[in-house]
Amino acid sequence: MKKIKAAIVGYGNIGKYVLDALQTAPDFEISGIVRRQGDENCPEELKAYKVVKNISQLDKPDVAILAVPSRKAEEYAANILPLGINTVDSFDIHTLIPETRSRLMEIARKSGTVAIISAGWDPGSDSIVRALMQAMAPKGLSYTNFGPGMSMGHSVACKAIDGVKDALSMTIPVGTGIHRRMVYVELNDGADFGKVAAAIKSDPYFVNDETHVMQVESVDSVKDMGHGVNLVRKGVSGKTQNQLFEFDMKINNPALTGQILVCAARAAVRQQPGCYTMIEIPVIDYLEGDRESLVAHLV
Amino acid sequence: MKKIKAAIVGYGNIGKYVLDALQTAPDFEISGIVRRQGDENCPEELKAYKVVKNISQLDKPDVAILAVPSRKAEEYAANILPLGINTVDSFDIHTLIPETRSRLMEIARKSGTVAIISAGWDPGSDSIVRALMQAMAPKGLSYTNFGPGMSMGHSVACKAIDGVKDALSMTIPVGTGIHRRMVYVELNDGADFGKVAAAIKSDPYFVNDETHVMQVESVDSVKDMGHGVNLVRKGVSGKTQNQLFEFDMKINNPALTGQILVCAARAAVRQQPGCYTMIEIPVIDYLEGDRESLVAHLV
Repeated sequence: MKKIKAAIVGYGNIGKYVLDALQTAPDFEISGIVRRQGDENCPEELKAYKVVKNISQLDKPDVAILAVPSRKAEEYAANILPLGINTVDSFDIHTLIPETRSRLMEIARKSGTVAIISAGWDPGSDSIVRALMQAMAPKGLSYTNFGPGMSMGHSVACKAIDGVKDALSMTIPVGTGIHRRMVYVELNDGADFGKVAAAIKSDPYFVNDETHVMQVESVDSVKDMGHGVNLVRKGVSGKTQNQLFEFDMKINNPALTGQILVCAARAAVRQQPGCYTMIEIPVIDYLEGDRESLVAHLV
Repeated sequence: MKKIKAAIVGYGNIGKYVLDALQTAPDFEISGIVRRQGDENCPEELKAYKVVKNISQLDKPDVAILAVPSRKAEEYAANILPLGINTVDSFDIHTLIPETRSRLMEIARKSGTVAIISAGWDPGSDSIVRALMQAMAPKGLSYTNFGPGMSMGHSVACKAIDGVKDALSMTIPVGTGIHRRMVYVELNDGADFGKVAAAIKSDPYFVNDETHVMQVESVDSVKDMGHGVNLVRKGVSGKTQNQLFEFDMKINNPALTGQILVCAARAAVRQQPGCYTMIEIPVIDYLEGDRESLVAHLV
């Protein structure tokens, strides 16, 4: 069997977990890792691989796994797709997904490549569950409840506030898609906690949610990468009311994102040119192994 | 928008719920209903439709929804596909799915049509959840726990036993894919309960499960069409252990099957010729509505 050649682009928190998932996937080989510093200060676990500054320096991979910040994902994809390399990312700004998809659609089709965007757990695998629940009960209400777990976006928003040295914003589900924000801040010397707390509560990221701010000595000592989702739908199948569906998970957040990116990389080499979100791809295409035997074991 | 023309083939319990789901789907029109008796003793709710003995008597539908017994589904599909009509069924004998799929694959490809098989909730929507969970954690154990709910197959097996007038076999989940069978029997006059109970417990359908048999005066008075599933996986994403996933539903059984068959009928007209199980089709294809706006709302 010919292995899929994958490059990891970006080597932060998600990139490390992508490496784990690639190393454990029997159908992949790693072309190399692309990072700003190239092989300068190369972490121990990358010593076995080619580590470069630009993807063109690698033996041409089939797919580039973009483990870069969300806001940079489209730019990377737009530059890499024309090289004839498929891309996958976990772009997570929900409201910008349709336009990003349509811009990358054009580039991917023109270059005969595949881009899979928003391939994480939400957006991503949760999107598949939401779509499936809507198919099973077309009328009804769905709620996605997140947590308890750290919100990267909210934590970064806190860190941008004057006087904050480090911050952790935890998302706490209170049901029906409503969330409480529990914010833990470590202050710079001389900073006023009252002012910081007020600034956080009036920040656009927090202003619509119940938010509690607490001061801690060390944010690092209260950090945990666990996260959770509870997705519920109550709806109508045909004319039958009260059909109840629920999906729950408790996961290590970046580990699941890394794994899903690798599944999407596998699916990318199996699609026709174009840009896709996860709900537009058959679930079987995310899986390793012979199609017939997957049907026999999973259906 | 051109509506999808669907015929319902078979009008038993499932067929009635397929009718409900078609009547509430804005993108379908009903070509007619095919039943053995044609329009003889036609139920009230079918009076508005063409009810015939043979599908060739209908204005040619795009898709035939086969609401026939599992064992008959392949034969119906094999006869209807060559007419240039797509088919969907909820064939539920798991072990026979791969060979059924490959036989219908040939017929469908030859006639340029699409057959979607095993489109119910298990096999069916549960298969999608199982496949997705395996993608998210490739190493690990999954368990599908059914119930509490009526097992049609087990109930029919009981009814075949000498002395049994009517029977209901309830599937009770006891975790890790193990099930208890609670069997309620109504006896013929003069039948020996002890003998009946022993015969049930030694029947191949029951011999491997903990089975309790109880005599009731009326099976009908203890029947309920509710059912449930609890699907769990604990596994490894990349190299990270203890990733926990769970899917739960409490549903009216035939109503969900009818709804999923209609979703599959919609997907059938969107696929290339061939035979598919549900995991081989993008989830978005099961849904009504504009693709762009589904992406915007569900991803």
